[in-house]
Amino acid sequence: MGVDVVSPEKLASALSEHWSPRVIAEVDDAYVKVAKVQGTLAWHSHDQEDEFFYVLAGTLRIEMEDRTVDLHAGDAFVVPKGVRHNPVADQECHLMLIERKSTKHTGDVVTEKTRSLAEQLRPV
Amino acid sequence: MGVDVVSPEKLASALSEHWSPRVIAEVDDAYVKVAKVQGTLAWHSHDQEDEFFYVLAGTLRIEMEDRTVDLHAGDAFVVPKGVRHNPVADQECHLMLIERKSTKHTGDVVTEKTRSLAEQLRPV
Repeated sequence: MGVDVVSPEKLASALSEHWSPRVIAEVDDAYVKVAKVQGTLAWHSHDQEDEFFYVLAGTLRIEMEDRTVDLHAGDAFVVPKGVRHNPVADQECHLMLIERKSTKHTGDVVTEKTRSLAEQLRPV
Repeated sequence: MGVDVVSPEKLASALSEHWSPRVIAEVDDAYVKVAKVQGTLAWHSHDQEDEFFYVLAGTLRIEMEDRTVDLHAGDAFVVPKGVRHNPVADQECHLMLIERKSTKHTGDVVTEKTRSLAEQLRPV
């Protein structure tokens, strides 16, 4: 992982399942992931880890308790550690994410959409 | 830093100086940076840190001792820790980088192009 040139957008496009992030590169104690999303994930937080979102295609809304941000293709945003958030995509959206290896998909919340790290490490 | 939505490509476009990365977001112990590059930087390595490259616009060639990779817009690549590399852009190229806070611009090599972390933390 991480030894070849990859196209995050091509990899995100190739995913068949929504809200199922896949690791595409390792950078020290962080993973770079891609995801294809539509609809909503779940309200959750990561108490110890910041989370970096970069929109490859489409639009992502990140609802937080005190505000909401809209990210369009090419936009980036960091959800600071401890901030409860809920990602929402009205239409299909492709994301690149940077998360610490310790980051759990939906924090301490577990839903049917929650993916384990092992699931995220499957090849695209 | 990192509390607002940012457009890495717009920020990279706004830079006036080549090879002068700027921090645009903080993700735990890592910085997300943008840079506008043309020509060559310097052969160097980061002995303790991986370095993530994502090409926002243009083409970047990364020369390494055992191979060379060409990254086009939308491509990503990780230079593993300890690997000597030399980034080259025949034409102007815009980059997004993910580096640990401890990463030095040109490793232990210092040239006239080397930028301190303080310089990289100046607002775009």
